[in-house]
Amino acid sequence: MADNTKGLIMVNTGNGKGKTTAALGLIMRAWGNGFRTLILQFIKGSWQYGELKTLKHLAPLVEVHQVGEGFSRRGGDQQKHIDAANAGLRQAKIAINSGKYDLIVLDELNYALDFGLVKLEDVLELLDNKPEKLHLLLTGRNAKPEIIQRADLVTEMKEIKHPYHAGIKAQKGIEF
Amino acid sequence: MADNTKGLIMVNTGNGKGKTTAALGLIMRAWGNGFRTLILQFIKGSWQYGELKTLKHLAPLVEVHQVGEGFSRRGGDQQKHIDAANAGLRQAKIAINSGKYDLIVLDELNYALDFGLVKLEDVLELLDNKPEKLHLLLTGRNAKPEIIQRADLVTEMKEIKHPYHAGIKAQKGIEF
Repeated sequence: MADNTKGLIMVNTGNGKGKTTAALGLIMRAWGNGFRTLILQFIKGSWQYGELKTLKHLAPLVEVHQVGEGFSRRGGDQQKHIDAANAGLRQAKIAINSGKYDLIVLDELNYALDFGLVKLEDVLELLDNKPEKLHLLLTGRNAKPEIIQRADLVTEMKEIKHPYHAGIKAQKGIEF
Repeated sequence: MADNTKGLIMVNTGNGKGKTTAALGLIMRAWGNGFRTLILQFIKGSWQYGELKTLKHLAPLVEVHQVGEGFSRRGGDQQKHIDAANAGLRQAKIAINSGKYDLIVLDELNYALDFGLVKLEDVLELLDNKPEKLHLLLTGRNAKPEIIQRADLVTEMKEIKHPYHAGIKAQKGIEF
């Protein structure tokens, strides 16, 4: 990377599929510029088959690791999810300091925060100590104000109109 | 494609780079599902080197054609741009009816409409007569209400915080 790189902290927040779509687009742009990208998925299942297939096609410059577990709002073994998310945070810390990547996507970390799976102070520590030139993207709805405050670029994807409300079922290749 | 495909009319609107980023993401998802995608660029220069390089890597399933001219708000030969945009619309019509694509991105067509380069009635005719299963994505700021009304999925990308305002210059690989 050029020497005058200022690594940005970015947040994609808002409702709907737009966040993942926008993250994919950012990864694509980064790839075209020769960036090395790591995606850590904090929520299992938030990326679908087609998306993962395209990401695979961008390897080895793009790596995807799932660090979290899928979970539902309704009970279940919450501790398992807390443990997985915190293990993911430790993996993130190692990756952030490895010097191996230009962009690290902490996918659905906002969501994991919102659900109380990880502690805000742990995430803030990660952001505050990242290497100068590394770009970080945090996705997920309900981004915390403290995260927004530290971010350089915050984009809200807002679904103004959605086919679901008109009774049209989700379309493969477009919505998933 | 599966027989129960309902081709969506989609609009990505809003300020900033988010629209192109989200369009890239959608194209990537479509590619992963084996879709054939055509991108018609109505404004020259709206896609940057890195983005175009990634799109090229997704060929032959992804085709990009520039149909418009770059233009500035400040005078110049406006007629040249009007002619180019309308020629682009005719190309779009042929492509839409060709049966060769699953997704066609009319990139910055909202912008071309907003600048009066093309007529609203011509664009509406295009939307109203598209094949049932074809997905269409229109991007560009200031989407017209008549376009929004016909769309199935409308996403607004809103930059809540941007590094430019903090005096940080645009970062290669991330913002362009």
